[in-house]
Amino acid sequence: MSSHARTASRHRVVVVGGGFGGLFAARRLSRSNVEVTLVDRSANHVFQPMLYQCATGIVPVATIAPPLRAIFRRRRNVCVLLAEVTGFDLDRRLVYARSPGAELALPYDSLIVAAGVRTSYFGHDEYARHAPGLKTVDDAMTVGRRIFGAFEAAEASDDPDARRAWLTFAVVGAGPTGVELSAQIRRAATHTLKREYRSIDSATARVLLFDGGTEPLATFGDHLSERATRTLRRIGVELHMSSLATSVDDRGLEVRSGDGQVTRYDARTIVWTAGVAASPLGRMVAEAAGASTDRAGRVEVLPDCTLPGRPEVFVIGDLMSLDHLPGVAEVAMQSGLHAARVIRHRLEGRETRPFHYVDMGSMAYVGRGHAIVDFRGLKLSGFLGWLMWAAVHLTFLTGFMNRFAALLNWMTALTGTRRVRVFSASDVPSPAGADRAAEAVRGR
Amino acid sequence: MSSHARTASRHRVVVVGGGFGGLFAARRLSRSNVEVTLVDRSANHVFQPMLYQCATGIVPVATIAPPLRAIFRRRRNVCVLLAEVTGFDLDRRLVYARSPGAELALPYDSLIVAAGVRTSYFGHDEYARHAPGLKTVDDAMTVGRRIFGAFEAAEASDDPDARRAWLTFAVVGAGPTGVELSAQIRRAATHTLKREYRSIDSATARVLLFDGGTEPLATFGDHLSERATRTLRRIGVELHMSSLATSVDDRGLEVRSGDGQVTRYDARTIVWTAGVAASPLGRMVAEAAGASTDRAGRVEVLPDCTLPGRPEVFVIGDLMSLDHLPGVAEVAMQSGLHAARVIRHRLEGRETRPFHYVDMGSMAYVGRGHAIVDFRGLKLSGFLGWLMWAAVHLTFLTGFMNRFAALLNWMTALTGTRRVRVFSASDVPSPAGADRAAEAVRGR
Repeated sequence: MSSHARTASRHRVVVVGGGFGGLFAARRLSRSNVEVTLVDRSANHVFQPMLYQCATGIVPVATIAPPLRAIFRRRRNVCVLLAEVTGFDLDRRLVYARSPGAELALPYDSLIVAAGVRTSYFGHDEYARHAPGLKTVDDAMTVGRRIFGAFEAAEASDDPDARRAWLTFAVVGAGPTGVELSAQIRRAATHTLKREYRSIDSATARVLLFDGGTEPLATFGDHLSERATRTLRRIGVELHMSSLATSVDDRGLEVRSGDGQVTRYDARTIVWTAGVAASPLGRMVAEAAGASTDRAGRVEVLPDCTLPGRPEVFVIGDLMSLDHLPGVAEVAMQSGLHAARVIRHRLEGRETRPFHYVDMGSMAYVGRGHAIVDFRGLKLSGFLGWLMWAAVHLTFLTGFMNRFAALLNWMTALTGTRRVRVFSASDVPSPAGADRAAEAVRGR
Repeated sequence: MSSHARTASRHRVVVVGGGFGGLFAARRLSRSNVEVTLVDRSANHVFQPMLYQCATGIVPVATIAPPLRAIFRRRRNVCVLLAEVTGFDLDRRLVYARSPGAELALPYDSLIVAAGVRTSYFGHDEYARHAPGLKTVDDAMTVGRRIFGAFEAAEASDDPDARRAWLTFAVVGAGPTGVELSAQIRRAATHTLKREYRSIDSATARVLLFDGGTEPLATFGDHLSERATRTLRRIGVELHMSSLATSVDDRGLEVRSGDGQVTRYDARTIVWTAGVAASPLGRMVAEAAGASTDRAGRVEVLPDCTLPGRPEVFVIGDLMSLDHLPGVAEVAMQSGLHAARVIRHRLEGRETRPFHYVDMGSMAYVGRGHAIVDFRGLKLSGFLGWLMWAAVHLTFLTGFMNRFAALLNWMTALTGTRRVRVFSASDVPSPAGADRAAEAVRGR
């Protein structure tokens, strides 16, 4: 019936998750004599590091989210399933999943769990309504509608306080996503939207960037952090370091700074890029194997990315806890390739090795044709940085047409144009009972 | 405060709705010495005749939905407002609207109401859940997720009946939208998805097209209707003419054919393109003016598109009822230009004329590089038709980059590729309690 059935004698690998880790594992495995089933509840591989570009109108979501099924069209030994994994039976070697069509039990000989992380509000899930994260396609669309919708609300408002609040954007978390998003909001405000409004001056929009640490892009090292600080200041992002959000509501947030003082900021648009927590599948597979998880729910793995006593079960990417490796795309890709290699070597009877991560560096796009790059120790910024940034992003973007489309969109964005803004009045959340000076006659 | 206030001495025109009618009126008026306020609850001008292309993965929504604000960036006398119109006071010459930022009362000297139509289920609004229409951006995204999600559900299902139902697509209404959508679903099934699945053969997908009339594209005339019938049959669309849907649920629909027989079709994906009803704003403005509405709620206007006793109030496009003119983009555009012309002529003290519609013909895209076109009496089909179709659609698509992107996407689609498919498991509606043979172990 299914292709599994016809070839059940081959070694079966189930890969859970189609992010960077799962994608790279499945791609590498597709060249070995194994049967791969790739399960994801999303039909698409999402290039997460570019989600902020969708949220700020530079590229359409489809460009950074090719269908997994299309990626593996020609790899006949890879079967893609759209389904939500609901549990594991490690003794019977089964993965349980619910698809829109059926409940499934997927047998495996090797299992790779690459379910990734989601936004964490550190125990304050009630913030989510007011301050969406930026980890999924839906997040990006929500954030985009809110950002561009806020300018619309400001244009329509006659109340100076409300208008100021609509034109204030707070980004919590100054890692790459927070930095890139802040920079792009300022860029949209000062260039894209500059001539589009009649009542407001979009360039007066404030962008506040909060982080508990002492500098933005802390993981990039002092040199590049300083560069980022300077660039962000130049384009008008207001940096608030050593600052922790202590409360978030529908009109703004409260922040405690290093000296213990608490300040309230009226900001109608808040984006949360401050923390991540492991997918619940992490805890699920850890419990089934008797493995430990760290505070963020990541699964503690052996040096070869497998679980103790379960050499056939790999946990990779953001979901694994190993040697304090950072939760970046590069770790996910390399651990995916590693898991695929171990499986192949075992089938060939060869010796396997522990996972060895090669740090390729980090990069962030902080403004018009300006990026900050640390590539294997080579530190670049400005336009040279941008060229490197563009080259690396095009390399890892999947699909020729998507690369072409992204490049075209980046070129267009350099001129200030962003046309990827589709939303309606109902997409803009109004604070309860706000601003409604009934029948304020405009223009009289 | 607002730009209205600064220039209130100029003649003020409020345009309600940014579809073809409102867009063409506002564009033409922007060249006159008037103040234009364009109000729409959507931030975008939506090229409705291409929505089926978004639903079938050919072009991203942003390509056919440029922001109204961006379109009018350089027209300084046009102010765009994102707001939902809530009422009219024709005596005080005010339009009431609710924006996310404020409640507004917009004063006008001339008013153009171009709020268009929505999907009508002829009194059966309960069908909407199971059979979305294809009139808005949200519709297109919903329909797209359901179409591509249905193939996913079929792939995951082991139950042959359920699989067949997931692979059956019913389109109700054989006007241009229904015909184009049916053709594109077949095209996706037989080309795009052909090699992507492992358990199902996507080409076995059935597409059923139902219509109460005797032939598809009835308004195109017998010659082109016959052409369309032949083409649809050739690509495998099953035509059911003289057939009325008598009930719709989460698993399919019942249809009564010309001989009175009622047949049930199990189809998990149903799209409703059969009927339209006027926006409620039509009835609202008609009541305020004491004008009549027709059965579909369209406003009966005088020959110059104004309301009786209210020469300063125009109702245009799909929302107007005049001389049995069809609800097509061309009527909307021409009536928009007409209203703008009348307003200008009045300001110049010139005589005004009744609206005179010039029929430019009709066209529909029915398959790979194959369109059916009646352009001012010139009847074309096949590839010549496609060229004409492409030229006309590019002409009316707004924005250079959008034209470029559309052309590129069409070229890509000719090869069978469609990458604009972003969805997840939760986007696929499962019928209550269906198909869930618990723990059916796959591939054993």
